[in-house]
Amino acid sequence: MTAIDELIAALAPEKVLTDPDVTDSYARDRTFLEPGKPLAVVLAETRDDVVATLRWATRHRVPVVPRGAGTGLAGGATAVEGSVVLALHKMTAIRELSPADEIAVVEPGLITADLDRAAREFGLMYAPDPSSYEISTIGGNLATNAGGLRCVKYGVTRDSALGLEVVLADGRILNTGRRTVKGVTGYDLTGLFIGSEGTLGVITAATVRLRRAPAVYPATIAAEFTSLRDAASAVAAIIAAGCQPSLLEMLDRNTLKAIDDWRNIGLEESTQAMLIAQSDAADGQAVSERMAELCTANGSPFVAVSSSPQEAEELIGVRRMAYQAKERIGKCLVEDVCVPRSALPDMIEKIEAIAAKHDVLIATVAHAGDGNLHPVFIFDHGLTEPPPSVWAAADEVFREALELGGTLTGEHGVGLLKRRWLSLEAGPATEEIHHGIKRVFDPLGILNPGKAI
Amino acid sequence: MTAIDELIAALAPEKVLTDPDVTDSYARDRTFLEPGKPLAVVLAETRDDVVATLRWATRHRVPVVPRGAGTGLAGGATAVEGSVVLALHKMTAIRELSPADEIAVVEPGLITADLDRAAREFGLMYAPDPSSYEISTIGGNLATNAGGLRCVKYGVTRDSALGLEVVLADGRILNTGRRTVKGVTGYDLTGLFIGSEGTLGVITAATVRLRRAPAVYPATIAAEFTSLRDAASAVAAIIAAGCQPSLLEMLDRNTLKAIDDWRNIGLEESTQAMLIAQSDAADGQAVSERMAELCTANGSPFVAVSSSPQEAEELIGVRRMAYQAKERIGKCLVEDVCVPRSALPDMIEKIEAIAAKHDVLIATVAHAGDGNLHPVFIFDHGLTEPPPSVWAAADEVFREALELGGTLTGEHGVGLLKRRWLSLEAGPATEEIHHGIKRVFDPLGILNPGKAI
Repeated sequence: MTAIDELIAALAPEKVLTDPDVTDSYARDRTFLEPGKPLAVVLAETRDDVVATLRWATRHRVPVVPRGAGTGLAGGATAVEGSVVLALHKMTAIRELSPADEIAVVEPGLITADLDRAAREFGLMYAPDPSSYEISTIGGNLATNAGGLRCVKYGVTRDSALGLEVVLADGRILNTGRRTVKGVTGYDLTGLFIGSEGTLGVITAATVRLRRAPAVYPATIAAEFTSLRDAASAVAAIIAAGCQPSLLEMLDRNTLKAIDDWRNIGLEESTQAMLIAQSDAADGQAVSERMAELCTANGSPFVAVSSSPQEAEELIGVRRMAYQAKERIGKCLVEDVCVPRSALPDMIEKIEAIAAKHDVLIATVAHAGDGNLHPVFIFDHGLTEPPPSVWAAADEVFREALELGGTLTGEHGVGLLKRRWLSLEAGPATEEIHHGIKRVFDPLGILNPGKAI
Repeated sequence: MTAIDELIAALAPEKVLTDPDVTDSYARDRTFLEPGKPLAVVLAETRDDVVATLRWATRHRVPVVPRGAGTGLAGGATAVEGSVVLALHKMTAIRELSPADEIAVVEPGLITADLDRAAREFGLMYAPDPSSYEISTIGGNLATNAGGLRCVKYGVTRDSALGLEVVLADGRILNTGRRTVKGVTGYDLTGLFIGSEGTLGVITAATVRLRRAPAVYPATIAAEFTSLRDAASAVAAIIAAGCQPSLLEMLDRNTLKAIDDWRNIGLEESTQAMLIAQSDAADGQAVSERMAELCTANGSPFVAVSSSPQEAEELIGVRRMAYQAKERIGKCLVEDVCVPRSALPDMIEKIEAIAAKHDVLIATVAHAGDGNLHPVFIFDHGLTEPPPSVWAAADEVFREALELGGTLTGEHGVGLLKRRWLSLEAGPATEEIHHGIKRVFDPLGILNPGKAI
């Protein structure tokens, strides 16, 4: 009996895929990284399937690559050679949803937006909303500590997670955290798993915090600016005025141009940036008008303020088109640096200078309220991976972000893609501690080897 | 040259206290636990002092007990026999306060309220406000992941910490986290240190998040109830209505009676509980009136609503008197269970039943919005420690909290006091992982041995 036969016997034939044409489609995420060939893909349906897979993997020393929906942008779910891909997208149950305690207990394969919709039936919401939230899973969001648009007000995935059920590398089950809002018993193992990119254990359930959904559709503004510095000043003014936007996005000219070429949004020649902001507060309309005034005061020649949910949708729609518009132009390497908010204008100028220096097209969208920028490096459709000039430019972007007191990745994760820059941010003591922690959870090194740390 | 001479040589004579009468005063926190005799107390003034102390301790295998202000309620800072107490209360610098980035970089000995006051000069605030915040330090707050009254809206200490500078057991310096709001490079070591009660490293600086201070004094209400169930229903209604109180406290009759006996607040015979709530929102007065209506709708015969900062101060003043009022009656063992919010009325009834069964006086204050209860076990002033009946009652309270899906400690920590109950909440896999992590950071086991895990 081969190892794979043993795995099939432990699970069920239909849960173990071995046809290379099929397994290849589970081996990639949204990066350009060429995966190794997995031995098999396990389609887990229950926690017991996960336990059986990990026990088997421990016995046979086979690497396991956990996988949600494969929407990652850093190679965290890229298969390694000879691994088993442990696909969790079939574990979609909402085990519990308690409006009284404002919590839900969910399985990792649940699509994030589906949780949000389920919560809204009770007047609640699940706040974290990565741009992929209609196609990414809660498990993937937890594994990467995903951010999103609303996190300027509500925080990132970590801030909505109270406890986890995790299967360890050897198949043991660990419960972390709790069902309560507060709790300090023991070390923060919940936080340790979140963002660990499947290297410490496989999350099979999460207790997440829900929040009151806003009673009305968020009032929305879109402000044009003739310089990025003006737009950045408006961001600072909006934050300083205590407006507490529930979304505060900045689009640069290259992004706006891509959208305009596709959908004609009437882009003015002089427009260099756009800010889109929302307030979901009870007095959101008044707050939005205040934000509009602050944009005007900081040099915006034109600000649109929504007066109906339809108008709000139209304004936010411009932001939603950004990625697709860029993909029409070329292939996209989506990057993800984060800097202290005050360094936002400097970072944007650095990106522009780097683009010019390397003759690379970079179109940037920023979660401006968080100082989190997504410079998108656009290159020729005909290429299978980013050309050296793109990597050279990306390298400079990362270094500048660190120079400005920032970080390599605000919300996408390190995965495979950023490991070669990791030591620039994490010193030797940090790296040693990372590997020490890794050994505590996964002494054989079978969980997503070569990722994150 | 003795080990202590060597320590003095590495620091300075005035930084090393060895007189037993003096060292004893640094050996205790606010619990009744009898400490071991420390060899010495180090009064650290700089990070280098901490480095020198830990290098020395590693060389001589001497246990080190880090200490903030000694206001802990779980024995986390209780000295162990033959240890060096590493007192950090002299490291009080605010190294940086950036209004633009809404962050501060602070040393561990800074009094929490002093940071808040410094932030308010810039229209900002430091949100976490444990009841001890005028006497406790940021370092102690971080070590225990302290909560407070405002955390019902703003979260606990962890939610305001972005990064740490930590000295490891062997004297190496580790920087965790970042200056940015978001960031997912590497494992969440910041979260791991927070709440680890000095067992993994000594925090010598923290980058903390500040928030916009509310423009007006929070509007405040105080509602009387003739039953605890009614008060709990009002809590649920206030949360469900999305009022987002910035404080939501519940006081039981025993607490109110203690306050009334001391300061005559005109307590009615029929009053069994009081809710005190605040809203610091821009429309806080309207929100407070809405909260008052919800109290009335849930059976409150009398609700006071502040119409001025002075009145608000008077109403919240009742809550502030709670602890002192109880200390007049007897010695207090302050406990700290947290349950899912919906279990609050059940937990309160259980506490009352346990008090009756063991003939123990328990007066409970709850951070009701978080489901976090502080049952205060009051016993005779003549005793040096809680009598067996108190411990028996406390034991039952802990077990009931866990039974209701809660936790042993919402915000005080495990320290020494709760270690004997820890295994009820943390299973064997968790305990093994805890000790594995401990060994990664502190292989010689010199950092605050016997605490937290």
